[in-house]
Parts: sequence; structure tokens; C-alpha cells
Amino acid sequence: MTTPEYLTGNTEAIRRFIDKYDVFLFDCDGVLWSGDHLFPGVVPTLDLIRKKNKQVVFVTNNSTKSRQDYRKKLESMGIPATVEEVFGSSYSASIYISRILPQHHPQLKQKNKVFVVGEAGIETELKAEGISHIGGTDPAYRREVTPEDYKLLAAGDPSVLDPDVGVVLMGLDFHFNYLKMCYAYHYIKRGALFLATNTDSTLPSAGTLFPGAGSMSAPLVKMLGGQEPMAFGKPNQAMMDAIEGKFQFDRSKACMIGDRANTDIKFGLEGQLGGTLGVLTGVATKEEFLEGDTRPHYYVDKLSDLLEGAEA
Amino acid sequence: MTTPEYLTGNTEAIRRFIDKYDVFLFDCDGVLWSGDHLFPGVVPTLDLIRKKNKQVVFVTNNSTKSRQDYRKKLESMGIPATVEEVFGSSYSASIYISRILPQHHPQLKQKNKVFVVGEAGIETELKAEGISHIGGTDPAYRREVTPEDYKLLAAGDPSVLDPDVGVVLMGLDFHFNYLKMCYAYHYIKRGALFLATNTDSTLPSAGTLFPGAGSMSAPLVKMLGGQEPMAFGKPNQAMMDAIEGKFQFDRSKACMIGDRANTDIKFGLEGQLGGTLGVLTGVATKEEFLEGDTRPHYYVDKLSDLLEGAEA
Repeated sequence: MTTPEYLTGNTEAIRRFIDKYDVFLFDCDGVLWSGDHLFPGVVPTLDLIRKKNKQVVFVTNNSTKSRQDYRKKLESMGIPATVEEVFGSSYSASIYISRILPQHHPQLKQKNKVFVVGEAGIETELKAEGISHIGGTDPAYRREVTPEDYKLLAAGDPSVLDPDVGVVLMGLDFHFNYLKMCYAYHYIKRGALFLATNTDSTLPSAGTLFPGAGSMSAPLVKMLGGQEPMAFGKPNQAMMDAIEGKFQFDRSKACMIGDRANTDIKFGLEGQLGGTLGVLTGVATKEEFLEGDTRPHYYVDKLSDLLEGAEA
Repeated sequence: MTTPEYLTGNTEAIRRFIDKYDVFLFDCDGVLWSGDHLFPGVVPTLDLIRKKNKQVVFVTNNSTKSRQDYRKKLESMGIPATVEEVFGSSYSASIYISRILPQHHPQLKQKNKVFVVGEAGIETELKAEGISHIGGTDPAYRREVTPEDYKLLAAGDPSVLDPDVGVVLMGLDFHFNYLKMCYAYHYIKRGALFLATNTDSTLPSAGTLFPGAGSMSAPLVKMLGGQEPMAFGKPNQAMMDAIEGKFQFDRSKACMIGDRANTDIKFGLEGQLGGTLGVLTGVATKEEFLEGDTRPHYYVDKLSDLLEGAEA
């Protein structure tokens, strides 16, 4: 395995790096910001890349926000962006459910409703694709389990278990609870497909880590004896295919920038992109990039180190 | 591997089986009852065994109830029992935390508070052992996460993260939520030991399955990169040692009766008991007992099939 090239402080190497690619795919949390804290120098760095006529794409596994929400977040931080430049795991999952799944699972043409564990971002993207859904932010599921729930769920009562549900889609849910676990499990046991927007174990925020979407599906994986969900976030290549389909770029001229070896960097490597750049402002440590199983082509301490590549 | 002997309908084999053992360890959920439904014939079967002067022990991984709670449940169903006959995973964990852990982890003599994810049963057993604890049924943890929580947790603020917490103990929690996951994770990252009353993936109830204690620890295992908790329920032998310590029995003259191959039967086999009896009124199927990796010595369709062993 090759040793990643360290770009920080090396003006010539930075210029060669930027010139080499036409498209830069950016992970957001841990690269541009952490939680609500924008890293210094990010806006001028993006400006520099845009001024060199590069295509910028913001790729995020965060399922709680729709593409519109993400564009707003980017803009509120001073980063101009269009909805088309944003790819989220909820969007990727919704596209897959509406366009690909029915081809492989004819029963979904009848049982085409989605039980959602997650926040509004998933609901917005499902709605945009015309997919009917229940669960999600509905307050009826944000409560304690009752003895009556056990009876109705055990009986498969159609007043609680909607017979039209053919898919369970799990994403990051700040309102996760025992009742939602029960519903997800019973729908899957009755034949619903088990999908997850993404399976990130953690969510970087406020400079530390909190439970990620993978922490919502983990209890189900345990209950189902190890059955993993079909997942749509990085490093899943369904998302790369969607991005390529939209922008029609040459993969050898594209570079993925991210803070996680096993999601962002793996995503770029498995997608056979020309380059991958690791940043040390998120989850991965320098040791992980230098000695781990999944190593980027390049790494920097922080994204704004690329500013040195600006012409004098 | 041997083929389990099928006792149902075989009067002679049943009599030989009962005569062979002095002590019968009973799993409860899935053997005596499912949820609040007592299986028919269970009370006369226990009477039969008691009349033959056998020691009866009720061994349960259910962490939501204390031994007192369990005795009450048994009695409310018409099964006489003493507190000493009941061994629960919360009791087993509490004994271990108070008596064994401080020997191996001297830092616990100062940081001796337990952060509980679980119901009242855990709290009762910890209190009985004189162990101070927070979390558990405290309504302060039964709420949604707020932006303020992220900040305080990230900062390790002592107003939210009690510096005396040295142990996180996770059991079945019907009030499980995102906030509790955050607390458990941050305490463990700050050095607290990661313990679980048990790691059963599911809880049999109302004739079907619901999330078990293992579904509470699964997100933490995921967040911690695969680190499993130290667990105290079956099949962990800490519980067998405690039972043996109390009753001073000959293991070759003891038999474990249960419905789960990978907890109950494994518990008996690894404890080198003289016998194990599988019942088909719970989780395991006949195929699992006959062809699985963990096979009991005997099996019956239901516990009350042993009634055929009564003298005419």
C-alpha cells in the first residue's frame, strides 16, 4: 500500500493537486464544519477551487436534512450552493426506492409504502419522489410503548401494522425509541425490506462524537441475527453512480475529500476516482490515514491548508 | 455432536430424567410463561418436581425486575417461590460490581457510581448492594436531546457528566432514547467500564419477539468499533458461579431448562451441568435443538409434558 502524500505547507504539491482534477466531491461534517461550527478558511478555499473552474459537489451521509435543507445550511454559513450540487443519503435512498427497487421486487408495486425511522430530511426526499410513507416525524411514534402495543403488534393488527408497508428505511433519528424498534422489527419480520440511508456509527458534532444512523439500525441487525440493511450512504457505490449520472464526469479526473477512512476515502477508492484527500479535522487520525487499511492518496491537516495553492 | 432425546410422550424416559437430577434451574420467559401468559400445566409440573424433593431455581436474564419483583410475578401466577430461589441478571451484575470489580479496578474505589440504562429492577439490586447510581428511571433522562446537551457533553461538563461515574450498566430499557445513548457513550469514552446485565437480542412477549437488552447495548458496540460489554446474564458463567455458591450443589446432578440454545442451553453446557432440557414454547425451533451448534441433552414440546412422569 502506498503512503499518502502530505500536502500541508507544500505550495507546489498543492497546486499540482488542484490542477489534476476537474471535480471535487466534498464530505461536509468533519471537513467544512463540525456541528454548527464552520472551520476557518473553508469559504476562501472553496472560492479558490471554484475560481479554477472546478465542479464542486457536496456529498453527505447525514440523512436528517434534505438537499434543500443542506443548501440552506451551506448558504447560512456563507457557502453559495445549488440544490443540484448536494447529494445526501436520504436522496440517494429515495431515488433507489422509487426507481430501482420495483424492478427487482415486483411485490413493491403493491406494498409500496415506507416505514421511516428518521427525521424530516428523509420524508422530504421520499415525498419528492412520490413515495408514500409513515412513521418518521409523526408524533404517534414518539411515545412510550404500552401493553396494548405488544398485543396489537403480536397479532399483526392492521390498525397498527399497515399492510401496504413493503420497506423499512432507517436513518439518523434524534427521537429514536423502543416503540420504533418494535415497529421496524415487526415490519421486517412480515417481509418488508430492511434499508438504511447509511450506517455511520457516529455523528461528529460540537468537536466530539454522537450516535450516528448506524446506531439506529444496530439493534435491528442484532435482533435479526446479523442481517445488515441495504445502505445508501458513502461508501455505497449507489451514491457514486447517481453523482456520475448527474454530472457525467471522468472518474479519473475527480477527487473525493473527507475525514473518514472507512466511509469517505473508501467511497472514492472503490469508485475508482483519480484522487482521494483526507483531512484531519474530523474522525480519522493521522495514524489511521498513514497506517490503516484504507489510505487516501493525499492528506492535509485541514481543508484551508489548500489556500497555499492560491497564486501569489 | 449427540442427538437430543425427545421426552414428550415417553413416560419412562421422563421418570428417569427427573430422578437423575437434584437441582432444576428454570429459565422463565418462554418456559413458564410468555409475557403475562402462563403456559397451561406449568404449576402442576413445578409441584411434581418439588414433591420429589428437588431444588428449584428460577434463572432469568430479564433485568427489568428485581428478585423481589420476580418472586411477586411467580406468586401472582400461583407459583410459590422465595427471593433466594430467584437469580436475575441485575442481581448478578450488582454482586459483581460491588464485590469483584473493585479488586480488579482500584480506580473504582473512588469512581464508584454507576450510570444505569434500564428499568427499576437494576436500581433495586444496585441499592441492595449499596452501590450509588444515576440514570435509570430518572425522568431527567427520559426526554429529547437538545443543542445544549451536545455542548455540555462535548465539554465534559461536570453538571451533566458526573465525575464519580466509573461504570455504565445497560439492561433492557423500555424508555431507551438518543439522549441515553449519548450519555453512555461519553461516560465510556471518559474511562467508565462498559457492562450489560445481559445481551439477549430479543425479549419473548405476547407470543412473539420484542427488542431485548442486547438491543440497548448494540448501538454502543457499534459506536465503540466492536467493543462488547462485559455481560452477566446467561450464558455468562458469573451467574452460574453465584448460583452454585448459594446452593452448594453438585453440577453433575443439576439440569438447566430453557427455550434458547445460545443462552439457556449454552449456559448449562458451559457450566458443565449434568443435564440440559430444551422446551419448544419460546425462541428455539425443533430444528435448532436437533441440528444447531448448541444442542440440549433432552427436549420436550412444552414443560408440562413432564407431568407424564407423575406416579399413576
